[in-house]
Amino acid sequence: VSPRTGRRAGESGTEAAILDAARRSFAEYGYDRATIRGIAASAGVDPALVHHFYGTKEKLFVAATRFPRVPSEVLKEIFESSDERLGEDLVRTLLRILEDPEARAPVIGLLRSAMTNEGAARMLREFITDAILTLVTRRAEPDDAALRASLVASQIVGLGLTRFVLEIEPIASASVDDLAVAIGPTIQRYLTGEVRGDR
Amino acid sequence: VSPRTGRRAGESGTEAAILDAARRSFAEYGYDRATIRGIAASAGVDPALVHHFYGTKEKLFVAATRFPRVPSEVLKEIFESSDERLGEDLVRTLLRILEDPEARAPVIGLLRSAMTNEGAARMLREFITDAILTLVTRRAEPDDAALRASLVASQIVGLGLTRFVLEIEPIASASVDDLAVAIGPTIQRYLTGEVRGDR
Repeated sequence: VSPRTGRRAGESGTEAAILDAARRSFAEYGYDRATIRGIAASAGVDPALVHHFYGTKEKLFVAATRFPRVPSEVLKEIFESSDERLGEDLVRTLLRILEDPEARAPVIGLLRSAMTNEGAARMLREFITDAILTLVTRRAEPDDAALRASLVASQIVGLGLTRFVLEIEPIASASVDDLAVAIGPTIQRYLTGEVRGDR
Repeated sequence: VSPRTGRRAGESGTEAAILDAARRSFAEYGYDRATIRGIAASAGVDPALVHHFYGTKEKLFVAATRFPRVPSEVLKEIFESSDERLGEDLVRTLLRILEDPEARAPVIGLLRSAMTNEGAARMLREFITDAILTLVTRRAEPDDAALRASLVASQIVGLGLTRFVLEIEPIASASVDDLAVAIGPTIQRYLTGEVRGDR
């Protein structure tokens, strides 16, 4: 397990200013249109410093929203699974990360905001698309990649809501392994199976 | 298509008082613990009158929340489908109902409230469980019925959010038929397939 990226404790004034500017930019412009250059300008620092602290826009987003892990790194690990275990491993890994209430809070918080705030919705939409799509593209036909990524997103978002927000039983209290067995094949089909029928 | 149950236009003073009381009761006590007797008392009318106007608690809920259709009736129609078309027909029917923005608004509104308000979350949780479970029980082994119902709920809620709130493409603008083909088999497996592995 890699270290948290939140930096709450030892955060310097400069880092805090960058993270504040990032939160404002992502909320105002969405994930795609927010730029490291713009965030640096708004924080009154050099873009090179932002790159030095956070490396990529994704990592800056993860730090600013206090996401528990960098999604593309989590997905990269999962996509090292054998082909036939992809779906189960994705469900298992995501749920294990979210078992920790402290790790879960910012993710659920962003999902909640996205329900009522178009800025947050766009931010989350673009981020999910970006993170899942990049990885799906490695395996699927380019034509289907966006469809597959959004299907995966639909089941993962629904699972997160059902387990952690709506708390519908037995999903709310089922073991991670049982959910991986029940929902893994869905993700597996969305990633590698037939999703367009035979038309 | 059956008529809307909202009764906005010709609503009498008594009906408006009953619906107000119902909205307050469902929000305060949840779907399970709210009673027609309690709602009638709070509206200052006889419970027989509430039964006369709305018949069942489910129909009263549908009227109070302005749901477009009575879910158990929609599900009853779907469950008259042939066994192997259940999943596709459920996705197709629900999405067709929600295509109408006016029909969709109260459903999405309740989902939004459920994200931030525990009363609304409990109301929705109990209502979904009740509506889906009743129908699932007709076909599945009793032991698995609750699991199957909550799995169906997870994919349906996720689909609704992805299409109508987060608007993740291509799900947001895909045709109802394409989504029925892509997501139907998931619902089908949750309803009638293997969801517990071979342990």
